[in-house]
Amino acid sequence: MKIGMVGLGRMGLNMARRLSRGGIDVAAYNRTVQKAKDFAAEEGGTATAAGSLAELVAALPAPRVVWLMLPAGAPTDEHVDELLPLLSPGDTIVDGGNTYYRDDLRRHEAAGKLGIRYCDAGVSGGIWGLAEGYCIMIGGEPEVVAPLQAALDVLTGPGGNLHTGPIGSGHFTKMVHNGIEYGMMQAYAEGFEILAASQFGEKLDFPAICDLWNHGSVVRSWLLELAQRAFTEDPRLESLKPYVDDSGEGRWTVNAAVETAVSAPVITMSLFERFRSRQDNSFQDRVLAALRNQFGGHAVKRRNG
Amino acid sequence: MKIGMVGLGRMGLNMARRLSRGGIDVAAYNRTVQKAKDFAAEEGGTATAAGSLAELVAALPAPRVVWLMLPAGAPTDEHVDELLPLLSPGDTIVDGGNTYYRDDLRRHEAAGKLGIRYCDAGVSGGIWGLAEGYCIMIGGEPEVVAPLQAALDVLTGPGGNLHTGPIGSGHFTKMVHNGIEYGMMQAYAEGFEILAASQFGEKLDFPAICDLWNHGSVVRSWLLELAQRAFTEDPRLESLKPYVDDSGEGRWTVNAAVETAVSAPVITMSLFERFRSRQDNSFQDRVLAALRNQFGGHAVKRRNG
Amino acid sequence: MKIGMVGLGRMGLNMARRLSRGGIDVAAYNRTVQKAKDFAAEEGGTATAAGSLAELVAALPAPRVVWLMLPAGAPTDEHVDELLPLLSPGDTIVDGGNTYYRDDLRRHEAAGKLGIRYCDAGVSGGIWGLAEGYCIMIGGEPEVVAPLQAALDVLTGPGGNLHTGPIGSGHFTKMVHNGIEYGMMQAYAEGFEILAASQFGEKLDFPAICDLWNHGSVVRSWLLELAQRAFTEDPRLESLKPYVDDSGEGRWTVNAAVETAVSAPVITMSLFERFRSRQDNSFQDRVLAALRNQFGGHAVKRRNG
Amino acid sequence: MKIGMVGLGRMGLNMARRLSRGGIDVAAYNRTVQKAKDFAAEEGGTATAAGSLAELVAALPAPRVVWLMLPAGAPTDEHVDELLPLLSPGDTIVDGGNTYYRDDLRRHEAAGKLGIRYCDAGVSGGIWGLAEGYCIMIGGEPEVVAPLQAALDVLTGPGGNLHTGPIGSGHFTKMVHNGIEYGMMQAYAEGFEILAASQFGEKLDFPAICDLWNHGSVVRSWLLELAQRAFTEDPRLESLKPYVDDSGEGRWTVNAAVETAVSAPVITMSLFERFRSRQDNSFQDRVLAALRNQFGGHAVKRRNG
Repeated sequence: MKIGMVGLGRMGLNMARRLSRGGIDVAAYNRTVQKAKDFAAEEGGTATAAGSLAELVAALPAPRVVWLMLPAGAPTDEHVDELLPLLSPGDTIVDGGNTYYRDDLRRHEAAGKLGIRYCDAGVSGGIWGLAEGYCIMIGGEPEVVAPLQAALDVLTGPGGNLHTGPIGSGHFTKMVHNGIEYGMMQAYAEGFEILAASQFGEKLDFPAICDLWNHGSVVRSWLLELAQRAFTEDPRLESLKPYVDDSGEGRWTVNAAVETAVSAPVITMSLFERFRSRQDNSFQDRVLAALRNQFGGHAVKRRNG
Repeated sequence: MKIGMVGLGRMGLNMARRLSRGGIDVAAYNRTVQKAKDFAAEEGGTATAAGSLAELVAALPAPRVVWLMLPAGAPTDEHVDELLPLLSPGDTIVDGGNTYYRDDLRRHEAAGKLGIRYCDAGVSGGIWGLAEGYCIMIGGEPEVVAPLQAALDVLTGPGGNLHTGPIGSGHFTKMVHNGIEYGMMQAYAEGFEILAASQFGEKLDFPAICDLWNHGSVVRSWLLELAQRAFTEDPRLESLKPYVDDSGEGRWTVNAAVETAVSAPVITMSLFERFRSRQDNSFQDRVLAALRNQFGGHAVKRRNG
Repeated sequence: MKIGMVGLGRMGLNMARRLSRGGIDVAAYNRTVQKAKDFAAEEGGTATAAGSLAELVAALPAPRVVWLMLPAGAPTDEHVDELLPLLSPGDTIVDGGNTYYRDDLRRHEAAGKLGIRYCDAGVSGGIWGLAEGYCIMIGGEPEVVAPLQAALDVLTGPGGNLHTGPIGSGHFTKMVHNGIEYGMMQAYAEGFEILAASQFGEKLDFPAICDLWNHGSVVRSWLLELAQRAFTEDPRLESLKPYVDDSGEGRWTVNAAVETAVSAPVITMSLFERFRSRQDNSFQDRVLAALRNQFGGHAVKRRNG
Repeated sequence: MKIGMVGLGRMGLNMARRLSRGGIDVAAYNRTVQKAKDFAAEEGGTATAAGSLAELVAALPAPRVVWLMLPAGAPTDEHVDELLPLLSPGDTIVDGGNTYYRDDLRRHEAAGKLGIRYCDAGVSGGIWGLAEGYCIMIGGEPEVVAPLQAALDVLTGPGGNLHTGPIGSGHFTKMVHNGIEYGMMQAYAEGFEILAASQFGEKLDFPAICDLWNHGSVVRSWLLELAQRAFTEDPRLESLKPYVDDSGEGRWTVNAAVETAVSAPVITMSLFERFRSRQDNSFQDRVLAALRNQFGGHAVKRRNG
């Protein structure tokens, strides 16, 4: 089996490596072509680099499989738009990026008009995926997904990929997965702050507590193993800034909850805490301070004052 | 009618003034005696200063009424402990501070053993109370509250005082009032931040919007009048720091909700935002940043780095 | 001045009445034509009914003003699509419904291509608007809004209308207004439940507490006056079902917060409580019950069991 | 080593069994004595039953170790009060129940005055602990905890027990653990409800998704394994009622957060959802419905109407 991999960022490069090392032929393309050449040189064997999407398509046997690992939104749209005229009926595009599921539906329809197959793959696993295997949720028609099984099995470990349902369902399931992840992370984060702020806080050994909880407690998890690693490196994380980015999935999960009238306080509050972490001069807090001053004469702190 | 006023802080001093100006004789005591002397000099007439609690008690006709306006907790306890041996059966202590209602129950019982009456008064109104009248919720036995009516009517405007029920109910009702206040303030604060962050934000005239909303809209309120004053002084509140204190009532309201199994998301989130406003290096956000880095290789921001 | 009013639902009918009674000529149209005829018969004078949009347009002097009070989304789109070919350059459409502000931008652009003016009016006031005046936030070009001033002044009381900024800003400001309204309502609702659940709850006189708080307390507001009315009719609201609808504005406000990375816990939790109020067999609660049973052997309640 | 086990409820009985099967002699006592007799008969060997606390103490070699597994609060207090006069200086009480950490501090002080040692053990593991080993957090002086090591190692698997710090720290750490557990459970619960409510919901295979996520995804955890078991038994949990109890630890965690001014939205919202799950006629929702009706004339649903 041979796959064309488009996009050699943090995720795409490692996935290309894992495919190649697992016996799948990989033709790789990246806008910065040197990255593809480096990959081909590094992997050797059947791994090759393409200098353009046209070269990539030409390097693949029909029916072709092109796997996209690109930033969601415009970059993916641009590559799909460029790819569609190059492909032939029966070829398949797999979008493995962090795409909004409604974009899958739209692109699937556009591709379908040309007879080109389209499916969506939500990929979890981060930097651990190369060594441990990714976790992949894939949506699309059964006849589109089935031919990908060998590649999926290489990318994931046993049990690590699932055909979730129709087009869009892979990214939707991955999106909700990330929402859950936000909530779990925030639960741990709050818990450790409550421990740290307590009368026992200074003495508590956080790496030891993580390790303990991972031996038989109800909250044992992989995230807790990662927390242990982080606390072992820096017991109170004093080297870090309290700044937390969010990718699109958390926001889309909240939007999905709002749209379907599902109460999702934990996932939403987790997202809001990330927003909050990036503000150092909160407008709403200034409104609160101003109101307290107005009615109670409570002192306000003034800037440069 | 004559009242002994103990505690001439921001609230107590203005309440003593309003009583005195409304025809109630006031004997005032403050630990820093000069404050009481200043009050008596300023008001003149029947307003007098006492140099000690004993002097205060001696200056009052039996049955005496001593009104405490002291910081909650230890300061109130200390004054009650000192007052009880000085008072006689039938005298009344009114605790008008921001006392936790369970302290009322305890002190009421202790006073009762000596035949001394005790009631609790929750007072709202802030710095506007002197001019506009306070809003007072009073708890205690009817025969204890009834003799205070003339003083209550002077302190509040018409309709501004209510006997809420048994001992503790005045402070409990005032406590929940403050919880509601937190929630309302936060609702406005979020709303104005969403407006400010929007594509229309730069052009929106916040004082004008406050004024508009106070003319016929569903959200019209006194807090919104105060918001208008604040925005008029400083249209984007740029002179203020985003730092918001909390007094005890918000915390007690959340504790009461937890104790009685009432879901109170809005009041609680309002309290938490105040906590959050005072942190500039959130521990939980560092945990989140560390976890993202561990699983995704997401860049973390390092201090001094 | 003469205005064409399209849509005689709860809001539109009363607005037509207020315009007519305030000296503005009104030609009214409603899909169910009888409603327009009833309105014209009821008001008499210069109020007239139109049997179709074409009739309505014909009844208006150029440049025409057509004010839409229709359900947001498709119904408004359908009427705009039907109106545009009937109108002439220089005519104005005012959308006074609960429209999503992005729809304003789209329709404004489409109308503009035909030389037709378009502005958006967010209207607050509910069933009280007829008697007390509405509160109107209006967005659009100054030259579009200015000619409407006489009608706006009749619809609102003094100070009750504001030109907020460019097209869309009226509905956006009204949308956030409703988000704030959700938060304030939820703050009061939580407070009264905490009071009701407390040891003092049975004795507390809620209408009296509302009345008290509206005399000098920090939380005084029009919503609290309404709460007093409701509690006076039914002291513990036992005749009502705990079922709370939401209109679109709350959801859009949360979406706007998410889109602009603003933390809005109170507005969002208020929306979620409304969602929650309409569920009588929460899926998430069944998941929680199932998990507790799995790890702790905690008894679960079974349906029909 | 020999231990006196007091309280043979769901947790205590299995812990006694695990100790006994692991080579620790156990003398068991339960207020309903038959339970202790059943245990001794079942286990045989060195396991014995005591008919009273006095008998239990008499059956233990000095220095004695008595392990309490009782409901928190009054039942634990009663047994401690009865035990203290029966014990001798140098004996040790271990409280393994779900005790509030401040009760540990109080009892530790009272026991200390009699020369009796006291330590606190937070025990996680539920019904799985017997087979898989418990997870134990233990607080107290090092010289009190050290002699318990053999028993702790039998109760837990390797790595499953930790001396967290001074008296109270074991229960405090366990308390926060449970708070985190609430948050994680709620994150999963919301996620599955969002999946179920989506356009893909009907087709999604929840047991397969749980299994998938436990193979390489970021949210893999033991709780997710339990979710898989639950969904396998009942794919949409339709046999369950949406009713979720809470034990004290969640409430105490929120109180600890409030006391130390830590923002803990996720843990708190998780607790509130449990409260909410047990209400079928929410007061706050009736307040919201009443207010909407008052200002907007929105229809309310009436009971029996």
